[in-house]
Amino acid sequence: MKLTVQKDRFNEAVQHASKAISSRTAIPILSGIKIEADAKGLVLTASDTDISIQCFIPAEEDGMRLVHLEREGSVVLPARFLSELIKKLPSPQVELEMGDSFLTTIRSGSSEVQIMGLDPEDYPQLPELEENRRFTLPSDLLKSMIKQTVFAVSTNESTPILTGILWNVNDQRIKFTACDRHRLASRTTSLDVDADFQLPAVVIAGRTMGELNKILPDDNALIDIVIADNQVLFRLPSLLFYTRILEGTYPDTSRLIPTSFQTEIVMDTKNLIDAIDRANLLSREEKTNIVRLWMKEDGTIEISSSSSELGKMTEQLNAHSITGELLRISFNSKYMLDALRAIDSDRIHIGFSGATAPIIIQPEDRTGVLQLILPYRTTN
Amino acid sequence: MKLTVQKDRFNEAVQHASKAISSRTAIPILSGIKIEADAKGLVLTASDTDISIQCFIPAEEDGMRLVHLEREGSVVLPARFLSELIKKLPSPQVELEMGDSFLTTIRSGSSEVQIMGLDPEDYPQLPELEENRRFTLPSDLLKSMIKQTVFAVSTNESTPILTGILWNVNDQRIKFTACDRHRLASRTTSLDVDADFQLPAVVIAGRTMGELNKILPDDNALIDIVIADNQVLFRLPSLLFYTRILEGTYPDTSRLIPTSFQTEIVMDTKNLIDAIDRANLLSREEKTNIVRLWMKEDGTIEISSSSSELGKMTEQLNAHSITGELLRISFNSKYMLDALRAIDSDRIHIGFSGATAPIIIQPEDRTGVLQLILPYRTTN
Repeated sequence: MKLTVQKDRFNEAVQHASKAISSRTAIPILSGIKIEADAKGLVLTASDTDISIQCFIPAEEDGMRLVHLEREGSVVLPARFLSELIKKLPSPQVELEMGDSFLTTIRSGSSEVQIMGLDPEDYPQLPELEENRRFTLPSDLLKSMIKQTVFAVSTNESTPILTGILWNVNDQRIKFTACDRHRLASRTTSLDVDADFQLPAVVIAGRTMGELNKILPDDNALIDIVIADNQVLFRLPSLLFYTRILEGTYPDTSRLIPTSFQTEIVMDTKNLIDAIDRANLLSREEKTNIVRLWMKEDGTIEISSSSSELGKMTEQLNAHSITGELLRISFNSKYMLDALRAIDSDRIHIGFSGATAPIIIQPEDRTGVLQLILPYRTTN
Repeated sequence: MKLTVQKDRFNEAVQHASKAISSRTAIPILSGIKIEADAKGLVLTASDTDISIQCFIPAEEDGMRLVHLEREGSVVLPARFLSELIKKLPSPQVELEMGDSFLTTIRSGSSEVQIMGLDPEDYPQLPELEENRRFTLPSDLLKSMIKQTVFAVSTNESTPILTGILWNVNDQRIKFTACDRHRLASRTTSLDVDADFQLPAVVIAGRTMGELNKILPDDNALIDIVIADNQVLFRLPSLLFYTRILEGTYPDTSRLIPTSFQTEIVMDTKNLIDAIDRANLLSREEKTNIVRLWMKEDGTIEISSSSSELGKMTEQLNAHSITGELLRISFNSKYMLDALRAIDSDRIHIGFSGATAPIIIQPEDRTGVLQLILPYRTTN
């Protein structure tokens, strides 16, 4: 292998591929990035067996030469060192040349680095996917859907299926659901597919979705999503992101969500977030994060919390509307903040079915995002 | 105590004072900030016994009312909670009211927080300093002097005096020196004092100087510096910063610094920093951080390093001049990077007295900053 590649593009590909590298892999070759060079360009592959990322640098793009190939070949180079070295190289061009025993020389300006590479034949093969089930989502929409749900996945590995985000696709809609037994976050949006398009339920690890979120561009470029039997592939411009589907059956959460409420309030989202953020300064000292919400006859909402060491706080907020039975209810301030911050709407609708039933938080128009948190059963 | 204060000014004072709070104080009252209110305004005091910070908010400034006093008084409030609460308060005005048992109510907008305070009588007194030895330095110059030396203080508590920065004042000059037995960093500048002004040598903890650096403004406002028997006071606009002087005798480092060299080179600072930064990617894997510098007949300098696991690198740099005997020398790449980055000059002068004598790094004009690092005794 011998070639010259533009430093910026090589750096970008190395940084993206490195997102799949685990810092504590037990398989030495998986701490490396496989680099393959041929007339079409460069392919970089990295994997931690859960996530695999493949980046492409075409030989030519928009009439500009990105890779000058002298000799085809492939090698596996240490990812962490490579990702730090490339961005520090002095020249905008980087030359790669593999010699004997996979010893690879990287030249840039007057800098010459020899890296001990590994045999690419030992690198695991990426899965071949059947591309018969696929659809597309705009990148920025997919990012929102991840951010509005991923915080609610369980971190408890004893129920692995709950560490993932559930995907349901039917009726030309796609829904993400995350649930950790104390709260649930969901986001639904319409999907540009045929009316009879259907998918089996798919669960993808929250950690994986978080890594994907870091790589997805912030624009509305369409991301191709291919669902195979046990893998999902996200196809971005110049990048393939593979992840495995979590095994197991996701619990039915639909019965948790009431269809009507005993009490409904509409409030200004930011005012409520700010008040609970202040209450959280005291409640978090107590581990349980208890904050109390009290609806009053005069149409105001009192938020309060306390800490045995520090003191207590109360705050009055105006509700835009309160309908139904006036309640006093307690909940986890951290969960409530996560839920409120996932709602991109100036006003929120909160539905209650008594002091011990799930609290449902939605945007005022009650579409798209639905957040559920279980209240605390307290005596006041 | 009852008063209303502008939130922004109160927040700024609390954030500044909090810099003196240690997260692991064994004395409960020192986890708090003492707040004293009278007709002149508010005084906030915080201390970890090594550093004490006192901030002032005048009742009125430039014709603007900052504090509305209703009742004088004082209280100690928990620093960490206060510093997070104040910036989150909803209104630009904050009301403080102390009730029974130092229970203090903070009101802002519709938010009301009750904090358990402590008795200000239990708060330790700040030292009274004799102001007979004082001088001034511009804030930005003092910040540079700290940044150019503080990294070289020893972190080894077995020789406490070396964890500090030595101040020498004489001949209308001030010099900071830091030394950890492997390297030395010094910065000298002229001082606007009478010709006969002198000070005994003063050593101030590096950690303290680092905290002061965070508080000093980035402008050239003159900072008043008062040296007492065992304390130094830095007087900023609206802020007093007290620190104790380290006890003990600082070793004489002057004999470490050669007055003439066998070899002198002048190089482009940035090129050398970048090359050693790349070499450091390999050398740091070996704990010793060994980088080699080899002066060649053709007037180039070769920088090289290696790692048994990753590989090796070499790089050729042009020197602007090499005079004297051509050397091969090895040194710690991290120390060399720290030294080079402390020099604010496009070209650097490096002086050598053989492969085993101290390396002296200075700006090309050889004034102001002087950095010394000991070479490694290696066999190549």
